[in-house]
Amino acid sequence: MRYRLTIEYDGAPFCGWQSQTNGVAVQDVLTAAVEKFCGEPVTIFAAGRTDAGVHARGQVAHIDLHAVHEGDKLRDALNHHLKPHPVAVLAAMRVRDDFDARFSAIKRHYHYRLISRRAPPVLDRPHVWWVPRPLDLVAMQAAAKPLLGKHDFTTFRSSHCQAKSPVKTLDVLDVIADEIGFIVTASARSFLHHQVRSLVGALKWVGEGKWTPDEVIAALAACNRAACAPVAPAAGLTLMKVDYPPEILAAP
Amino acid sequence: MRYRLTIEYDGAPFCGWQSQTNGVAVQDVLTAAVEKFCGEPVTIFAAGRTDAGVHARGQVAHIDLHAVHEGDKLRDALNHHLKPHPVAVLAAMRVRDDFDARFSAIKRHYHYRLISRRAPPVLDRPHVWWVPRPLDLVAMQAAAKPLLGKHDFTTFRSSHCQAKSPVKTLDVLDVIADEIGFIVTASARSFLHHQVRSLVGALKWVGEGKWTPDEVIAALAACNRAACAPVAPAAGLTLMKVDYPPEILAAP
Repeated sequence: MRYRLTIEYDGAPFCGWQSQTNGVAVQDVLTAAVEKFCGEPVTIFAAGRTDAGVHARGQVAHIDLHAVHEGDKLRDALNHHLKPHPVAVLAAMRVRDDFDARFSAIKRHYHYRLISRRAPPVLDRPHVWWVPRPLDLVAMQAAAKPLLGKHDFTTFRSSHCQAKSPVKTLDVLDVIADEIGFIVTASARSFLHHQVRSLVGALKWVGEGKWTPDEVIAALAACNRAACAPVAPAAGLTLMKVDYPPEILAAP
Repeated sequence: MRYRLTIEYDGAPFCGWQSQTNGVAVQDVLTAAVEKFCGEPVTIFAAGRTDAGVHARGQVAHIDLHAVHEGDKLRDALNHHLKPHPVAVLAAMRVRDDFDARFSAIKRHYHYRLISRRAPPVLDRPHVWWVPRPLDLVAMQAAAKPLLGKHDFTTFRSSHCQAKSPVKTLDVLDVIADEIGFIVTASARSFLHHQVRSLVGALKWVGEGKWTPDEVIAALAACNRAACAPVAPAAGLTLMKVDYPPEILAAP
């Protein structure tokens, strides 16, 4: 039986989603919890292989188990076995055998949070990028607009990125200000490695006045990793939600 | 010279705002930072003497220093000396000698956050009350309304409260739901000890269906501490902002 899990985690203590030779991965503690529950070896596949330090409020993964379990009971049992790790299963449900957390996904939504002020953040520290200078919201919004749509994002892609093509379609890149700071929202079917953090790095340079919005367009057009502003740190990034076509989520 | 400080802190590691014989208070670490900076003994007076575990995004305090300091430099110097404590001075400004952080305040604004779901919160854990049951937003909103205005709040007052009168005027008591959970907003000129957390405890009982909104009215009318629902835990409460009349904030 295939199950879909919706997962929240604090990325700070982990070496990322995916198991590594160094450090503990979110995948490791989740695999251990599932195996403790069902007593059989399992492999967990996730929609987004988030980097070290990146958080999730709506990561999605799938697992195959031999037995039939009620979704709510599976969720509660996994949360019991996940303690004391900062990882929680928000929902578990049976899905069709052809549901694939990674390949069935049609959209991924990320938030990136910045705090722009002289005083260090003490309440939001683990979840924001602290920029001790003013940021120009309107300039950042102007710079975000031309990045929307289908482009070769080579400039905004890690040199370790394993995607076949650097061409991606960015559906949303919004910058808003709230009481606490700035939130950059990015949505696309899929992202290149470090793409959101590279885009945020560029927007932050615009916010500080180091780049004009036109210089971001030029960086994009350069299709050259060396043209990128410094990549934004992992702590500010959160995978918020992953969308699937309704038919693949129908009862199996 | 009198200075007004706006302060953010994570309440978790502290025994509250006010110095106690047991534990470290926010007041202690702030006093130490000011004394390190100016080399003279100081006393810090705050608008709200928050309890152990209660956070602040906009606590206000005043101090008297012998020298004239530029506000921004004072703020930066105090933040330097406050490290590594989770306390930050967001703003420092010179004010008139008759400015009193506590007695000049005309309104105090608090937020209380709850997360209502089966899975434990792992990203927001230190700043919310986790209620592993559904909460009825509309019922909570209905129960909040009759609490507005001037009442004898004896039921919603700690037995240790030192205020002369139990009569207070509640200007705002709103309940909203956001992506993460519920936020209760409470505003008044001043509050009784444990008043916000006692009110939230009652609203949570209504949200769970343990009380009807009418039973909250009855509890208020009882003017009896024993009629109160269990007090909400400190972690969910944050002092957001303190208002002063514009004339008292004018340049000295």
